[in-house]
Amino acid sequence: SPSGEIQPSVAEGAEMDGDGGDNGEMTAGKAIYMVSDGTGWTAEHSVNAALGQFEHCLIDRGCPVNTHLFSGVEDMDRLMEIVKQAAKENALILYTLADSSMAASAKHACDLFGVPSGDILRPTTEAIAAHLGVAPSGIPRGGRKAHLTEDYFQRIEAVDFTIKQDDGAQPKNLNRAHIVLVGVSRTGKTPLSIYLAQKGYKVANVPIVMGVELPKMLFEINQEKIFGLTINPVVLQTIRKTRAKSLGFHGEMRSNYSEMVHVKAELEYASRIFTQNPVWPVIEVTGKAIEETAAVVVRMYHDRKHRCSMPRISRRY
Amino acid sequence: SPSGEIQPSVAEGAEMDGDGGDNGEMTAGKAIYMVSDGTGWTAEHSVNAALGQFEHCLIDRGCPVNTHLFSGVEDMDRLMEIVKQAAKENALILYTLADSSMAASAKHACDLFGVPSGDILRPTTEAIAAHLGVAPSGIPRGGRKAHLTEDYFQRIEAVDFTIKQDDGAQPKNLNRAHIVLVGVSRTGKTPLSIYLAQKGYKVANVPIVMGVELPKMLFEINQEKIFGLTINPVVLQTIRKTRAKSLGFHGEMRSNYSEMVHVKAELEYASRIFTQNPVWPVIEVTGKAIEETAAVVVRMYHDRKHRCSMPRISRRY
Ligand SMILES: Nc1ncnc2c1ncn2[C@@H]1O[C@H](COP(=O)(O)O)[C@@H](O)[C@H]1O
Ligand SMILES: Nc1ncnc2c1ncn2[C@@H]1O[C@H](COP(=O)(O)O)[C@@H](O)[C@H]1O
Ligand SMILES: [Mg+2]
Ligand SMILES: [Mg+2]
Repeated sequence: SPSGEIQPSVAEGAEMDGDGGDNGEMTAGKAIYMVSDGTGWTAEHSVNAALGQFEHCLIDRGCPVNTHLFSGVEDMDRLMEIVKQAAKENALILYTLADSSMAASAKHACDLFGVPSGDILRPTTEAIAAHLGVAPSGIPRGGRKAHLTEDYFQRIEAVDFTIKQDDGAQPKNLNRAHIVLVGVSRTGKTPLSIYLAQKGYKVANVPIVMGVELPKMLFEINQEKIFGLTINPVVLQTIRKTRAKSLGFHGEMRSNYSEMVHVKAELEYASRIFTQNPVWPVIEVTGKAIEETAAVVVRMYHDRKHRCSMPRISRRY
Repeated sequence: SPSGEIQPSVAEGAEMDGDGGDNGEMTAGKAIYMVSDGTGWTAEHSVNAALGQFEHCLIDRGCPVNTHLFSGVEDMDRLMEIVKQAAKENALILYTLADSSMAASAKHACDLFGVPSGDILRPTTEAIAAHLGVAPSGIPRGGRKAHLTEDYFQRIEAVDFTIKQDDGAQPKNLNRAHIVLVGVSRTGKTPLSIYLAQKGYKVANVPIVMGVELPKMLFEINQEKIFGLTINPVVLQTIRKTRAKSLGFHGEMRSNYSEMVHVKAELEYASRIFTQNPVWPVIEVTGKAIEETAAVVVRMYHDRKHRCSMPRISRRY
């Protein structure tokens, strides 16, 4: 079942181990084709979110869906080949095609072959066109060169910074972070840090480990950029058991790490630290996908930073 | 100007340094409000892609756009407050609201206040509903708990793995990677690796440095998962100059790193390595955003893996 935008774009478990699910021979299940003249990530993201509305009937409930992403589709021949294949597979085609004649051809060919279809970005583009009073260029992203904007460098710097600060490395740099995450092992600090870094935030994360003192520097930086993460002990134990297995932990190490008594004690230890630092908001991550926690952190970050009457995250284009 | 989905969701340069652009007082420029009952990332991603169609008129061309993201909007009061503010600011509202009565209210209120608006996910959801013959749940993502799916663990493991392999660390693990990227410094190996890791691929990257031998292990693993990256020397020099400045390189170190003679020699050295290893596809990254290069790599990865007649990336829900 889908659980968020940045899930693997392949059914990893099966795929990567080579069961060949990716050869167009998935049988059971309805097919959705996503076609883009660009990367296809926009279509994938939207379809993934939309499929969230059908969780009650997807794989576990016996109504599986197979998605197939076709990216870089910039010529009519490839487009027609895809439409024909969709007709054979009884697939739905959802597309994002900047060139309006390509889009019209897609629609036309789908109608001709009896393939249900939808243009999933055009309504957005048209609403914006009407608002700006400017016509869309009709040029796919491949048709122009991406510039080395300040944004580009900023994002790359954020990723570089964040990787280097992972897991409490280099406390001396905590003051250079935009956001600092604090929590016990396996509360998702690393994937959350990376998710935020991709959005341009420099993130440092500091692990809470019983018996290990937190770096002094943590208490010397601006306390408003620090966020505590907490999680339900039962869920944490599940995550840690999986982790311990994949790391090949054995004996005492394994039990300390994932035994309930230890897990609970460590969460209580963390909770005492959070109580002592009431300025840090504490975010409950249980049952949240990474991108959901990220949304909460980013929202709070901007609210605290600007203390405006109407919380929002703004950006200039 | 927008250059891809994973740009910072804030105008970092200005914002993070605290010029207060995020307090709702951006003046010049048309406003677009994005409203979601969830994280808002889907709306942000779609609007970002759509704005690509207006690059010819955005900031540099004197027709700036300001976007404002409102996430977690689950009750009517907050929705109404946002609509009223949009009316004041002459903003366009683009929303994703799973609950159809919330969506209807949004539309109704916008019409009432003369705010142009659009539901940007519903067309996709409805096309899928018709295709599956199943009604959407109408439940926002916040209304359910994300599960600890195999996908979840796979993605986290991919991110953990990828961070640890960055910049040629631990060549002994190269065989465990799904994808191995090879290229000179600043061809974007790290951000590309991280982008792919978020999609569930375990990525290792190996730097090419003149005078440093590549790890033996690189030639012992499956050669089909290795990708070379190359870039135009002028563009690389620009990137390196920026990098050298931000790292505070001086004297000889700086000139070696970013002087044209050295940059060209290093790229030629890389190109000789690529010629000696003709199985590695060489991807030109010049002028490509990270997500564009990622799309190329993923496409080739799946094509090579399955050698199916119709290249596609498939996934099961
Ligand atoms: N920067 C951009 N410039 C022009 N078109 C873009 C840009 N980014 C995305 N698009 C278009 O938006 C749609 C979705 O892009 P993608 O997510 O790459 O599939 C495609 O039709 C692209 O051509
Ligand atoms: N896993 C999910 N389950 C239910 N609804 C979802 C899911 N993911 C996204 N959505 C909905 O899709 C829209 C876009 O989500 P978001 O990207 O979080 O703003 C919102 O209306 C969400 O409520
Ligand atoms: Mg797309
Ligand atoms: Mg959204």
